Amino acid sequence: MARDSKYDILFEPIQIGPKTLRNRFYQVPHCNGAGSEKPGMQAYNRGMKAEGGWAAVCTEYCSIHPESDDTSRVSARIWDEGDVRNLAAMCDRLHHFGALAGIEMWYGGPHAPCMESRATPRGPSQIPSEFEINIHPRYMDEDDIAEVQQMYVDAALRARDAGFDIVYVYGAHSYLPLQFLSPFYNKRSDRYGGSFENRARFWKECLEKVREAVGDDCAIASRFAVDTLYGSAGIEVGEDGVRFVEYVDELVDLWDLTVGDIAEWGQNAGPSRFFEENHEKPFTGQIKAGDHTNKPVVGVGRVTNPDTMVAIINSGQFDIIGAARPSISDPFLPSKIEEGRFDDVRECIGCNQCISRWEIGGPPLVCTQNATAGEEYRRGWHPEKFHPAANSDKGVLVIGAGPAGMECAMVLGKRRMSAVHLVDANREIGGCVNWISLLGHSDGGENLARGSARGLGEWKRIVNYRQIQLDKLSNVQVHTNSGLSAQDVLDYGAEIVIVATGCHFATDGLNPATHAQIEGADTSLDWQLTPDEVVSESKRIGKRVLVLENEGYFMGVSVAQKLAGEGHEVHLLTQMGDIAGYMEYTLEAPMLHRDLHRLGVDIRPYTMLEKIEPGICHAYNIWDEAHKEQLEVDTVVLCTQRISNDELYRELKSDKAKLEAEGIEQVFLIGDASAPRMIVDSIFDGHRLGREIDSPNPAMPLPFIRERRLWGEVSNDDYRAQLLNTPDVAVA
Amino acid sequence: MARDSKYDILFEPIQIGPKTLRNRFYQVPHCNGAGSEKPGMQAYNRGMKAEGGWAAVCTEYCSIHPESDDTSRVSARIWDEGDVRNLAAMCDRLHHFGALAGIEMWYGGPHAPCMESRATPRGPSQIPSEFEINIHPRYMDEDDIAEVQQMYVDAALRARDAGFDIVYVYGAHSYLPLQFLSPFYNKRSDRYGGSFENRARFWKECLEKVREAVGDDCAIASRFAVDTLYGSAGIEVGEDGVRFVEYVDELVDLWDLTVGDIAEWGQNAGPSRFFEENHEKPFTGQIKAGDHTNKPVVGVGRVTNPDTMVAIINSGQFDIIGAARPSISDPFLPSKIEEGRFDDVRECIGCNQCISRWEIGGPPLVCTQNATAGEEYRRGWHPEKFHPAANSDKGVLVIGAGPAGMECAMVLGKRRMSAVHLVDANREIGGCVNWISLLGHSDGGENLARGSARGLGEWKRIVNYRQIQLDKLSNVQVHTNSGLSAQDVLDYGAEIVIVATGCHFATDGLNPATHAQIEGADTSLDWQLTPDEVVSESKRIGKRVLVLENEGYFMGVSVAQKLAGEGHEVHLLTQMGDIAGYMEYTLEAPMLHRDLHRLGVDIRPYTMLEKIEPGICHAYNIWDEAHKEQLEVDTVVLCTQRISNDELYRELKSDKAKLEAEGIEQVFLIGDASAPRMIVDSIFDGHRLGREIDSPNPAMPLPFIRERRLWGEVSNDDYRAQLLNTPDVAVA
Repeated sequence: MARDSKYDILFEPIQIGPKTLRNRFYQVPHCNGAGSEKPGMQAYNRGMKAEGGWAAVCTEYCSIHPESDDTSRVSARIWDEGDVRNLAAMCDRLHHFGALAGIEMWYGGPHAPCMESRATPRGPSQIPSEFEINIHPRYMDEDDIAEVQQMYVDAALRARDAGFDIVYVYGAHSYLPLQFLSPFYNKRSDRYGGSFENRARFWKECLEKVREAVGDDCAIASRFAVDTLYGSAGIEVGEDGVRFVEYVDELVDLWDLTVGDIAEWGQNAGPSRFFEENHEKPFTGQIKAGDHTNKPVVGVGRVTNPDTMVAIINSGQFDIIGAARPSISDPFLPSKIEEGRFDDVRECIGCNQCISRWEIGGPPLVCTQNATAGEEYRRGWHPEKFHPAANSDKGVLVIGAGPAGMECAMVLGKRRMSAVHLVDANREIGGCVNWISLLGHSDGGENLARGSARGLGEWKRIVNYRQIQLDKLSNVQVHTNSGLSAQDVLDYGAEIVIVATGCHFATDGLNPATHAQIEGADTSLDWQLTPDEVVSESKRIGKRVLVLENEGYFMGVSVAQKLAGEGHEVHLLTQMGDIAGYMEYTLEAPMLHRDLHRLGVDIRPYTMLEKIEPGICHAYNIWDEAHKEQLEVDTVVLCTQRISNDELYRELKSDKAKLEAEGIEQVFLIGDASAPRMIVDSIFDGHRLGREIDSPNPAMPLPFIRERRLWGEVSNDDYRAQLLNTPDVAVA
Repeated sequence: MARDSKYDILFEPIQIGPKTLRNRFYQVPHCNGAGSEKPGMQAYNRGMKAEGGWAAVCTEYCSIHPESDDTSRVSARIWDEGDVRNLAAMCDRLHHFGALAGIEMWYGGPHAPCMESRATPRGPSQIPSEFEINIHPRYMDEDDIAEVQQMYVDAALRARDAGFDIVYVYGAHSYLPLQFLSPFYNKRSDRYGGSFENRARFWKECLEKVREAVGDDCAIASRFAVDTLYGSAGIEVGEDGVRFVEYVDELVDLWDLTVGDIAEWGQNAGPSRFFEENHEKPFTGQIKAGDHTNKPVVGVGRVTNPDTMVAIINSGQFDIIGAARPSISDPFLPSKIEEGRFDDVRECIGCNQCISRWEIGGPPLVCTQNATAGEEYRRGWHPEKFHPAANSDKGVLVIGAGPAGMECAMVLGKRRMSAVHLVDANREIGGCVNWISLLGHSDGGENLARGSARGLGEWKRIVNYRQIQLDKLSNVQVHTNSGLSAQDVLDYGAEIVIVATGCHFATDGLNPATHAQIEGADTSLDWQLTPDEVVSESKRIGKRVLVLENEGYFMGVSVAQKLAGEGHEVHLLTQMGDIAGYMEYTLEAPMLHRDLHRLGVDIRPYTMLEKIEPGICHAYNIWDEAHKEQLEVDTVVLCTQRISNDELYRELKSDKAKLEAEGIEQVFLIGDASAPRMIVDSIFDGHRLGREIDSPNPAMPLPFIRERRLWGEVSNDDYRAQLLNTPDVAVA
């Protein structure tokens, strides 16, 4: 299918300095967990986007020197010749597919704790990081400034040698250049502090020196937070925001604009729960619209809708559509738009699971929508290509059309299994997503300082995408309103049976804190509820509600938001030190805390329930079980733990002779029915089984390539040589 | 020097199954951050202990299968032939120095979140981990049990091939075998649950199968928590503790005994702040003393005193002295005892910085006492060997005898610099350690359920060790009571000047939360204090005290403990979500929380001070600055941030001509005087400069070897071959 001409603007080339972007799709720097240590993953994860049509693809933040070491988080690094070699693999793969390669040169100052290098980070003034625990920088005198600027130059030269086309001087997210620019970090009284020109000097000089070094060979980009969102204490778009762009515009070939800082970078990578598409426009949109730059501008906003993209360019907001998360969710977004295949786009749901792994530090990225993200190299998975299964003659019955079942059936369909039946007892496919996507909003929360409590509605895209794909697959049949007994399954006629029957919440208080039931907990009573019953509104909920949150992710707090927003008095108890700890990793926590605070929810950390009686809950402090409290409440909601719906699987498995007699060769258990987990992991589980349905033992995942040093394959001397070859470091 | 005969027992060999330990010093499994991915670090860090006289040295917990993947934390792994190759490097190095190599085979169940492998962990019953966020296991049916037991067998065979002498079936710290044994995890009603024999069956069968597979070639060890310390809900030493040892004693060649679980494993790796030497004796001591085993027993307890070691063996507590932290702090502990060099022992201070890096996930281990820990391979540092400096003819003046200055002077002395003068303005060397080591106790806290608030006294070992070493170095002179002005330094006559003048607490409320002073903050007033003033008792402290804790580590809470213990009413405010976040990583947090709770300290997270007035502090909630509160207090203690004492350095540096005229060739700034940091990092900073004083630019650390894949050095096919060669996995 040819593209609609209204999208032509998205495919017009554009010049940035000495380089040309083939179209307007640009993968801005984002983390993926590969760094410079997993060169295969780095090359193939980024390369998939080049193959999918992006005009430029960047590294994540890339440290220019061991003094900027973010361990345990994973950044790229361009410290030495080994890094040049490893990142060159990425550049080569991008160039092979016609994309430009960008590198985001990064010096973190006090935000880089240097736990691997053990170096001392430097900063403009000696104030500890607001993002790390107790990391003070060393004050930079003018010698330090010159040294660090030389680090940018040396890194840029190495980057050019590795094959990069675009070299960033990265100052967004409160890293060093912005630390000099912002009065929040810069308290100096010398020529690098005080006036705007003084505060801008460090960044300007970096740009000059990098341009001098590589500006004929590479485009020079700068990523800049036009507003740090805390008023005059930092950068405000109407003040230093536009001023800085104008001041150094001649030194920059491309502006990559963001908002926010590092401590709340969810203002930039806005979760859908609190931010809508193109939410940064009020800030980043002012630069080009106000004629403050003569250079191309790229910006982001979780934009997946091609009409929004066209509007962004035509309205003069940006010249280039930047994307991080939408490019993870669908590396082929540009190709699909070009080919008019809009309904094949896997739209980002804004859950920020990808980000959570960077925040945790160490794990590779994951994506709820795209189970192949991060698996391109190590498992050889391609998001758009599926090999026909070796056992494609088999018929498959998938029971349960939740995240795991939908995904598995879709993959099996694409692998050309002769017949795939996806059967669900409910009226619609989607499983838990159908009710979870109704959560997360309060009464709107428009009064929140930043963001609004708009809820998890975009998570429904999980279902929408798969529904469309399943509809297109002629070898897949979907049957809803069809509960199956074990006998029904035996009679069905499929050779392969996949049980994906999901899970349910514990009804008796069984929980990870005490590993026991809670006395008096019983959600068969009309005043005790599981979280799904809150959504279904199947029970009357009293004025005073206690929500027990033992999971640490979104469920308990979402229930609390909903009920408090409806006017209930809510106590929110957790055995942990803080509620919803995982939402720190998804960047949702600050907005969540603001909303719960606004709603007046009574949050009690380190608190657990001992006993539930009508009207009274008996709680205790986990540090002293003798310290008890009684809470008078009308309704109790138990978000304690989940339990797999695996009875059907157990029954089928219990009689292997019967399975054999009915021609059932294999029975598998996936998703929450195997072990309750996050949606991202359920989808992965279903996808994995589909990809490996023809392996010798599909129940056991095949091994994946682990990129690591193999002792003896490369000698210690050769390892050391990778350092010695680095021009700017002298080794004794 | 020959050893005292009273220590002979420590050097008697002992048989464990088919293997012989050369003496009674045994490095029990502990993490170091190397895993199977950094084979050089693994081989050289462990190898240093073999060189230092330990009879056996073990890996950290070593995963037997991708289904037990602890990413982001770093475990060893023996999943494939690549791991065999990498861990063989460790075995070879241990054998070279005459030590046995042990491997701790680990399957974590729900405590292993599998964020790299994305596999589904299995467990005896479906209850989420109390240690992780929201990780549910898959329920193990009998097929699952057989599969996982085969994983142990296959891993043991690979371990034998790698060269390991001792193979563990690891069940301590609440991992899978103990999950089956303990009713806290095991709620089964089949033949693997219920009665003691049923709960013990999984572990017993594992031992039988592993013994059958490799028991002629390897000693079989088991690490067992004899008491999980939460009563009848788990394992109690007097019940299932002794019962289990007796039940499987014939299958085990060595018992490695611990206490506690994973969620509170600080009960095992007890921080000195709450636990004294040999603190596990009341539990682990019962097994051998009660004649419940016929096999050798090893156990730990942060034991560094050789007399305690002798008593442990002679009293029948253990046969073998186990150590994790003392072996990190001094890899040559056995040799030094054998040679009668007791005063050269670098005794572990029990700060648990080593453990903090494992908890953080990713970073290599660090050690406050031993700056070479983890640096043996990548920087080539040996804890006991120092190359004479190439510029040893130079005289060195070190100003400031705190952690960084003491360490640097000691290293320079050992590197045979012609003259090193260590000068300090105070009466004693030690710097901040002298007053910090007086903190951390409350009124004893003997009523704590577990541990007692005994304080940071053992941290004083930092000073003691260095004092003794400095005294032995004839080329080092220590001058106390000697403050030096810039002119004094210029006149001193040293060619190299090292400024290590420490830091002080902000007196005006400057802090990482707001990056600004706090209105009204002024510790020149008699009712506002910096933390050191609390210790020095230089000001009268009123009944009602507010402690502002902005750092996230030990200072604010230690002050709160002390004052509350003395009867003050204490409010403890922090801008963070919980107080003292870093103490989660050092395993001190649970005991700390119990003590603060016991003391009635009013803890206010997410709270910051806006203004301080006599008698009244104005606080606000960080999620809504309009939400204000007034607290009536008599005294305010400001633990906000620290500031380097770098005036002397700045003054010296300001006139390079003058330096040259006086023959001063180099001036360096180290430790807190460069950037305030944790003591472990100050000591490292001083050590690093001493090691590299003769490099081309000693101010910049030399590069270190980074163990990583280098793209193209080993082909993708060879990488894949490392999987294909693995016997027990079939690859399509």
